[in-house]
Parts: sequence; C-alpha cells; structure tokens
Amino acid sequence: MSAMRLHGYFRSTASYRVRIALNLKGLSYDQRSHHLRKGEQRAPAYLALNPQGLLPALELDGGKVLTQSLAICEYLDEIAPEPALLPGDPLARAQVRAFAQVIACDIHPVQNLKILDRLRSLGLSEDAVAGWARATIEEGLDACDRLIADHAGRFCFGDAVTLADICLVPQLINARRFGADLRWPRLLTIEAACLSLPAFADAMPERQADAE
Amino acid sequence: MSAMRLHGYFRSTASYRVRIALNLKGLSYDQRSHHLRKGEQRAPAYLALNPQGLLPALELDGGKVLTQSLAICEYLDEIAPEPALLPGDPLARAQVRAFAQVIACDIHPVQNLKILDRLRSLGLSEDAVAGWARATIEEGLDACDRLIADHAGRFCFGDAVTLADICLVPQLINARRFGADLRWPRLLTIEAACLSLPAFADAMPERQADAE
Repeated sequence: MSAMRLHGYFRSTASYRVRIALNLKGLSYDQRSHHLRKGEQRAPAYLALNPQGLLPALELDGGKVLTQSLAICEYLDEIAPEPALLPGDPLARAQVRAFAQVIACDIHPVQNLKILDRLRSLGLSEDAVAGWARATIEEGLDACDRLIADHAGRFCFGDAVTLADICLVPQLINARRFGADLRWPRLLTIEAACLSLPAFADAMPERQADAE
Repeated sequence: MSAMRLHGYFRSTASYRVRIALNLKGLSYDQRSHHLRKGEQRAPAYLALNPQGLLPALELDGGKVLTQSLAICEYLDEIAPEPALLPGDPLARAQVRAFAQVIACDIHPVQNLKILDRLRSLGLSEDAVAGWARATIEEGLDACDRLIADHAGRFCFGDAVTLADICLVPQLINARRFGADLRWPRLLTIEAACLSLPAFADAMPERQADAE
C-alpha cells in the first residue's frame, strides 16, 4: 500500500510538478484522477479534501491533506531532504523560489483552464482566449529566461535539479499547447536535460494511467 | 544608511506583504517608489532590477536583487529567524504556505492591475472588470476561510503571526476596493488582531511616503 495519494489529473501542470518531486525523492504514491474538463475537481467529495476545488492535493498517510503544488513540493523537500530541491544558501534559495513563483503565481494561474473558461463566458473569441494564454506564457517565460542568465548550468540553477526545473518543464507543455513562440533556447536545452531523467520522464502527462 | 532597499508602491499589496515581513523582523530598509499607474515598473532602469516589471523587488546590501514577495519573505525568515514566519513542523509549514499561495497564486495575480487592464483592452466594461476581480477574491477567500477552520487562533494559524497573515491583510484591502462580500467574520477578526500590531499598521498603504 502506498503511503501517499496524489489527487491530480494527467494534464494538470501543477499535478505534474508534484509527480516530478515525488519521483525525485523516490517516494511511493498512488494517484487518484479527477477529470478537469468534466468538473470532477468541484465534486463535494473532492471539495472536502481541497476547498479550492483545484488540483493537485496530496493525501498523507493518516488522512491529512496538503494543497498548493509549491507548498507540497517544499513539504516533500523537508520530510525527504535528498536530493534537495533548493540550494542551501538563503540568497540562492530565494532566487530559485522566485523563478518557481513567476510560473506558479504569474503564469499558470492566469492561463489555466478555469480562467480561460471565464474569458469565454465573458464573450471572448477562441482566438482572443488563446492569445491571452500565449501572451501570458511568453511574457512570463521571457522573465524566467532572464532570471537564470547568470545561473544556468545543466539545469536552471547550476547542475542540480531544483524547484525551478520542476516548474519549468510542465509550463513548457502549455507554451506549446497555446502556440507560444519558443524563443528561449536556454530553457529548451534545460527541458531536454530534465526529460532525460526518469523522475521527469515518468511524470509526463502522456505516461499517466488517466491519459487520454 | 539602510542595509536594504524595497522597490515598491504604497498600493501594491505584494509590496505591503514585504513591508510587514521587514517590520516584523525589525530590519531597517528604505523604500523606492515606482508608480504603477504611470507604468514606472516598466522603466528600463527597473527592468534591469526585475525583468518581470512587477513590484516588489528587494535590493540587498551589495546590490543583489530579490523578486517575488513570498520568496522575499522566506528569505527574510531564513536570514532573521525571529519571530518565525512559519511554524517548525513540516506539515504545519505546508498548511501555512498553502494558505499564502491561495492568495499569492490564485487570487492576487488574477485580479491585479495588469490583468484588469488586459481585460479592459479586450473590450470588457468596467462592471465586468470589477465583477471579475470581486469573484476571484470572494472565491479565493472562501477557500482561505475554510483552510483555517481547524487552525485559527488569534491569527490564521494559532496565536503567532505567520506568512498566512502577511498575505491575508493586504488582500482584504483589495476585497473592499472591489466591493467583495465580506462574508468571513473569522478573517476579519484576524485582520483586526494583525492591525493592532505596529508591524502591520506601519506597513499600511496610507502610511507610506508615496501615498496619494
């Protein structure tokens, strides 16, 4: 029996972040899928676990539930310190967290399914909705690319995987999905390095049991 | 001379978070104001500090610059551990961080000036724009209120101020600004307790030198 249960969805990029973190830590977990397009994340049983009605949520052995993907990743980093998802130095930790938060605060929540559906409900065309997502992603990843200009190695910050990479790789899926201009060779090279690692590759949406 | 310089704006709620954290830690800082409505956050000199063109940024003694308010708050918590902004237990830390991230990821970036201006540029009416902000805030704070149902004391999580309170108090300003239904007596009681502390009160927008 697994110690933890991840409530997620194969295509949810925030769930993808947590799958990568769990894999990097070598933690055993099972998955419960909630179909976003069918609105299963708003079912009463799931709302009892996560009142936000968003994915993912991590149900711990004993029944406690954690929400918000970055909070979950930092929890995993604290209970299973190796390999570390953050550097040891406070300044470097802040830089990694800032990169992660550009994606987790300023890109993803502004272009996720829920927001795009709200734009549609306000009468915007599919072209306008896709343009919104694309502009959000391009502007955000432009900043991400500049934030690592003095730091990048094999990965975003040096030669060890950090929380920054865990956020970057899922976001690039959405970049492609909305036809963003992939004008960041540095980010794409890092993505390829990440996907050469089983922890990232095994967490890919298309490799999940609920993939369609 | 101050050791740190906060680049912010009196009305920026993310800047307000960092002002509270700096005050709680008793750290000395000066402030440089960038007028959001005039677009000063997109001036080349500021973009050289923060490529995102968002406030706040914290310039450290020596010139390094930190961005993203939650990353900055955690940095301050690491270099100046007392009073702690997070509990010691990993599970409790994750719960506090999740609450903070509901606000910092799912509420504020979806209702900030930049996004509301984008909605206007797509032809939405002022009523529709205000409705967007209000719905985002109400839905997010509904979740926040439920997340602390089993945890609240004098503050969001027990009787010590945490990162959760640092995010809550500024967000409630925006709740009022957009006419949200203030249906969270628990959150409002906590807000009052926070504002009785000088660290919060001194950080209020109207008490800043650039207040209009």
